Amino acid sequence: MSGAEGVPAQRSSRHIRTANRYRVLRRVLAAGPVSRPELAAATGLSQATVATVTGELHRLGMVRAAGFEDSAGGRPRALLAADPAGGTLIGVDVAETYVHAEVFDLTLRVRASTRLAPAPGEDGPARVVERIARAVGRLLADDGAPAGAPVLGVGVTMPGMVDREGGVSVFAANWDWREVPLLDLLTRRIPYRLYLDNPLRATTVAELWFGAARGRQDAVVVNLGTGVGAGLALGGAVHRGASNGAGEWGHTTLVHGGRVCRCGRRGCVESYVGAPGIIRTLTELAPDAAAARAGDQTAVIAALAAGCRAADPVALRVLEVWADQLGAAVADLVNLLDPEVVVLSSWVAREFGAALLTAVREAVDRYALGRPAARAEIVLSPVEGNPVSLGAATFALEGALA
Amino acid sequence: MSGAEGVPAQRSSRHIRTANRYRVLRRVLAAGPVSRPELAAATGLSQATVATVTGELHRLGMVRAAGFEDSAGGRPRALLAADPAGGTLIGVDVAETYVHAEVFDLTLRVRASTRLAPAPGEDGPARVVERIARAVGRLLADDGAPAGAPVLGVGVTMPGMVDREGGVSVFAANWDWREVPLLDLLTRRIPYRLYLDNPLRATTVAELWFGAARGRQDAVVVNLGTGVGAGLALGGAVHRGASNGAGEWGHTTLVHGGRVCRCGRRGCVESYVGAPGIIRTLTELAPDAAAARAGDQTAVIAALAAGCRAADPVALRVLEVWADQLGAAVADLVNLLDPEVVVLSSWVAREFGAALLTAVREAVDRYALGRPAARAEIVLSPVEGNPVSLGAATFALEGALA
Ligand SMILES: [Zn+2]
Ligand SMILES: [Zn+2]
Repeated sequence: MSGAEGVPAQRSSRHIRTANRYRVLRRVLAAGPVSRPELAAATGLSQATVATVTGELHRLGMVRAAGFEDSAGGRPRALLAADPAGGTLIGVDVAETYVHAEVFDLTLRVRASTRLAPAPGEDGPARVVERIARAVGRLLADDGAPAGAPVLGVGVTMPGMVDREGGVSVFAANWDWREVPLLDLLTRRIPYRLYLDNPLRATTVAELWFGAARGRQDAVVVNLGTGVGAGLALGGAVHRGASNGAGEWGHTTLVHGGRVCRCGRRGCVESYVGAPGIIRTLTELAPDAAAARAGDQTAVIAALAAGCRAADPVALRVLEVWADQLGAAVADLVNLLDPEVVVLSSWVAREFGAALLTAVREAVDRYALGRPAARAEIVLSPVEGNPVSLGAATFALEGALA
Repeated sequence: MSGAEGVPAQRSSRHIRTANRYRVLRRVLAAGPVSRPELAAATGLSQATVATVTGELHRLGMVRAAGFEDSAGGRPRALLAADPAGGTLIGVDVAETYVHAEVFDLTLRVRASTRLAPAPGEDGPARVVERIARAVGRLLADDGAPAGAPVLGVGVTMPGMVDREGGVSVFAANWDWREVPLLDLLTRRIPYRLYLDNPLRATTVAELWFGAARGRQDAVVVNLGTGVGAGLALGGAVHRGASNGAGEWGHTTLVHGGRVCRCGRRGCVESYVGAPGIIRTLTELAPDAAAARAGDQTAVIAALAAGCRAADPVALRVLEVWADQLGAAVADLVNLLDPEVVVLSSWVAREFGAALLTAVREAVDRYALGRPAARAEIVLSPVEGNPVSLGAATFALEGALA
């Protein structure tokens, strides 16, 4: 929650207009066919502003008339809905082991998707750009988009640190990329508006628009994968920080002087609660457990999650230790930020599901202060499919609205 | 940094007007006599908006004409300054061991101050309210305020959890207060507009308006006292959280399973880096040290700080251990929030001064990720006097501008 002093310095009427469009379109997307008075009530905007904004969205081809509803005693009310054919958005999730690209209609429904895996060693900027361009080209050739819908933009997420404004991949550890001018390289290959950011930011935007952070002022999106991070949505907006680097919760300290982390420091949250950390805990607790020999990281996590569902004592013990560590680290976010909601997201959270949720809620209650703990809901992400490509496409939608 | 999606739901033209007044008055206060074109350049507002807003501030009696400056070749430019006689603001810092009240003119200069210590046992709401009212009455009787300047408001900070909107002291641990309707009680005794909040919030607002967070989008104010906390100023505004409880960095985990904290949990930041934690470290490292017998907590901290200045090996060793723990905990804030500046504030930071700053900077470099660590400045608070009563008065100023 921000006081009035919170208005950023570049506030302008243009900025307000964009924000009002966001708010109205977000609501239309969330609610389905909706009347203007309902939009005014839901957004807090005046009826006059809603009329102006829906007119603009109509001219942009983003919303269309969707019939009428009866109004008790009054005239029937005109309904509006997002126009699937109003535009096409593309989201590309570039990870270390794949490029996953999806095309969305303007209701952010997936129309087609494709995934390319790199051949070993294909991790130089030129090859990655080539792969992104190929994925986008393939999607559009497949004609996943509604006929005639213009491509409004392509959002691309890159692992590591991203200079969003400059379009630069500042640092991608696993590929040893430094200061790669990715946007320039992509622009030569892809003839649409491009938006570059990182996956944590994309996941957060996906939750804000379409997931558990919708309508919330202060939310934390806890990403549990190989790496872990906390996407912050504060005051209703993504908090990026001074260098678009906010959210590195994975490299905050859980155990001062503890386990060595892949970042080189000791005791980081990630070294306990990320997938490799969980597996390390498993091998410490039960070096001979069958789950430890299930295969690669994904297979071991799946075996542990299955073990929890089958009440396997080793799997349950790993869950207990992990949820305790995770609960302490999530409690830090709750104490520091006092959010309305904490969303557990990404593939590790999805694997464990309800068992994780219950255990984390109990652990957060143990570790967090009473009042913020009572205030913060903890939920599993309701976003289906790949939240990163959805978020990347949402960046493109935000750009088209600006 | 926020995208356009960051506009809170209650944004309105009235809100914008208040924010513009803040921005212009803040600048006038910071810059001294200043011309309208300079204000436009410094605030990013249009010249027309600056003309409107300065007109409003003039009618409110807050700014006045302050002569002219030469403009190269052009007409002399009219200058504006804050009008000290435009109003009086009162800030009251209610702590467990004192009530410290100050009266400020509209340039936020202290005109008079008073401090009342409670007699033992005088910590029921009625007695505390009585003390606050007496302090305010004494200040105004002393006529610290410029003649004829109206009292624009009284800001009061209470330790613990405060429901700012409801005017309720939700929880004050040391007095065992729960849900005390303090604003109601104060309203019966003090005939001015009242603003209730907690000291961490006040310190943060003081840094935003008058200190090291001025003009910054993302700042963290690290309060180092008996308790510790991190006031967050994100997107140029105080981040309060869902229950005005944000900033409880003191009760985030530094050592999972470590020292028992006064909150009942283990390994909290505060149990290592607050004044009692430092003293505990001293007694663990050197139980026979002279500093440990210097007297009460304040005296021991002062003795340690003096020891550091005199290169006493025990004091330097305590500083080393403390700065390492503090650096790790500050690095967590840097990694998570990616701020432009971290401000070290409150009495313990002031005691150790430059020696602490140097040691913490080194430790943050060890623990934080490279990019956010390079971006974040770490500074000692430049705010003189009591930042809590200054911030409390600033709440009253914000109220008067709204
Ligand atoms: Zn790490
Ligand atoms: Zn604690």
